[in-house]
Amino acid sequence: MTPEFRRDPLHNTWVVFAPERQRRPQDYTAATLLPGALDPFAEGNERLTPPEVFALRKEKTKPNEPGWRVRVVPNRYPALRIEGQMDSRPEGLYDRVSGIGAHEVIIETPDAKTALEDLTISGMAEVFATYRERILDLDKDSRFQHIYIFKNFGPSAGASLAHAHSQLVALPVVPPLVEAKLLRAREHFAAKQRSLFSDILHTERSGGTRMVAENDGYALFCPYASRFPFELAVFPRRHNPEFTASSPTELYDLAEIVRFALQRLNAVLEKPGYNLLLHTAPLKRPLNDRFASAKYDFCWHLEIVPRFQSLAGFEIGLGAYINTVYPEEAARFLRGEVRQ
Amino acid sequence: MTPEFRRDPLHNTWVVFAPERQRRPQDYTAATLLPGALDPFAEGNERLTPPEVFALRKEKTKPNEPGWRVRVVPNRYPALRIEGQMDSRPEGLYDRVSGIGAHEVIIETPDAKTALEDLTISGMAEVFATYRERILDLDKDSRFQHIYIFKNFGPSAGASLAHAHSQLVALPVVPPLVEAKLLRAREHFAAKQRSLFSDILHTERSGGTRMVAENDGYALFCPYASRFPFELAVFPRRHNPEFTASSPTELYDLAEIVRFALQRLNAVLEKPGYNLLLHTAPLKRPLNDRFASAKYDFCWHLEIVPRFQSLAGFEIGLGAYINTVYPEEAARFLRGEVRQ
Repeated sequence: MTPEFRRDPLHNTWVVFAPERQRRPQDYTAATLLPGALDPFAEGNERLTPPEVFALRKEKTKPNEPGWRVRVVPNRYPALRIEGQMDSRPEGLYDRVSGIGAHEVIIETPDAKTALEDLTISGMAEVFATYRERILDLDKDSRFQHIYIFKNFGPSAGASLAHAHSQLVALPVVPPLVEAKLLRAREHFAAKQRSLFSDILHTERSGGTRMVAENDGYALFCPYASRFPFELAVFPRRHNPEFTASSPTELYDLAEIVRFALQRLNAVLEKPGYNLLLHTAPLKRPLNDRFASAKYDFCWHLEIVPRFQSLAGFEIGLGAYINTVYPEEAARFLRGEVRQ
Repeated sequence: MTPEFRRDPLHNTWVVFAPERQRRPQDYTAATLLPGALDPFAEGNERLTPPEVFALRKEKTKPNEPGWRVRVVPNRYPALRIEGQMDSRPEGLYDRVSGIGAHEVIIETPDAKTALEDLTISGMAEVFATYRERILDLDKDSRFQHIYIFKNFGPSAGASLAHAHSQLVALPVVPPLVEAKLLRAREHFAAKQRSLFSDILHTERSGGTRMVAENDGYALFCPYASRFPFELAVFPRRHNPEFTASSPTELYDLAEIVRFALQRLNAVLEKPGYNLLLHTAPLKRPLNDRFASAKYDFCWHLEIVPRFQSLAGFEIGLGAYINTVYPEEAARFLRGEVRQ
């Protein structure tokens, strides 16, 4: 069977079926960590990955050889296939879209023992510049409607490889949480003639109890209704729907504040597992014309969510969350005001 | 700080802040399993729980003493407090509701080593009858808008105690996934003059590829857009918005089919962690008048979701899922048609 997206009208969420990753039922009971001794993302092991699609390299080094600082390769176990035509059709009550898309891995460092936040600010800025390059390149493929970049660090956050990396997915549909967020942003703008993101930024910067840090480009704060303990949001101070419109200076400032955020989480929580989530506006496509107002009402942003426990029946069934730490309290710890 | 519900306009999801459960940051890095040797849910250890609110007991035994088969106690670490008035108000841009509600534990057996599906069918029917009794009792409290029952089995599903138990929460708000599901069911009914649940039931029973089993009362199947590998749905064959309207015969049939489902999952997947989720219509309340049509268009139902890996950045950020097993394939395994 080939990969496909499916949606049923009860849950109304897109599910990507990725049979390339399929295993026998028994395999589910074992841990999913790769057993091999070789790190496929380490410098010198370039042959263990599919050929690279992008890299930042020392001059005169060749693709798929050592000498890189950041390297992007297709996921060896992709949830989506790059080949094929977009094909959206009903299946009785249900909806199905062909499972095309891109699924790439951004290897953040050649060294197996270096974490993202161990890089210099300039080094981290190169990782974010790579995000930008990959989005701009994949934007040329008109089959894709939305691009999303995320990082899973640690088993509690769903990571199966320890070597520092992020993942990019280019999707033929706009997923439900993204669509819902865009629609709420539009409603807010229609009601107030102000961006929801600017209003949140104003509220947090003027209130201060949930603020953790800011620099020229960004504010770092614990959201009012944080779903996870010590959840963090990074909002750009300049309204900007698209991450790709960030300038080199803005990417440097972003690296500075994200590095600070991760280092503070490590200090307060002893290197927790976390997800880093990059939300940018859907791609400009005829099918996405319903989001045309995003250029006024939506702003790209980044979320950092530490992950301690599995989501349980409460969260899975209700889409609501139980959080044991108020964001005001988390912010005091992260600002360093509370001795642990 | 007292518990409260919060919602921000960006995520639009309710978050319950439960500071009773609060720990120091360092505590997040340790496992959350209770360290003690004593099982608070075992017969003879009744003193280790808050006083029971309901039990099915041998004649002439006293509350909070041995002799029970199913026992319900308030959660010792409740996310919600039973005392207090409903208080809903804005907080600038945001929304806040007082954290009142009930949070109860349904202990499914006095024996620490018995799993829910190890009970006899009649024994399991008593557990479901207890669910029904607790919902009927809490329905008398007009502060609550919605009641939800769920079971976490195994650490991968968020369980922190091994002794077989379910949890009930009575909430002062209708959570977002519940509201969204009700609205979709309403739209479907408005368009077709048929219940969405009846249409799914008809589709699955007539198609057959995703069906696993049925009995007089229920159909057991793998949903078309299963979010998790080997996900199962149990739909009653009689349209019925409220679980509490189930007859004793229907509860017996439910026990039979859920027991079969769990035993098949155990056989195919070696006792996986799972969540069992019971979705019933919101309580009849003035604030819930917008759901009045639920008596035609909504049907209570149950979901069983095996849990293998932590939800990762893809799922957390998009509300979309990657699933490695098509439901047609999962159903073949669960029907026993494929040798493992």
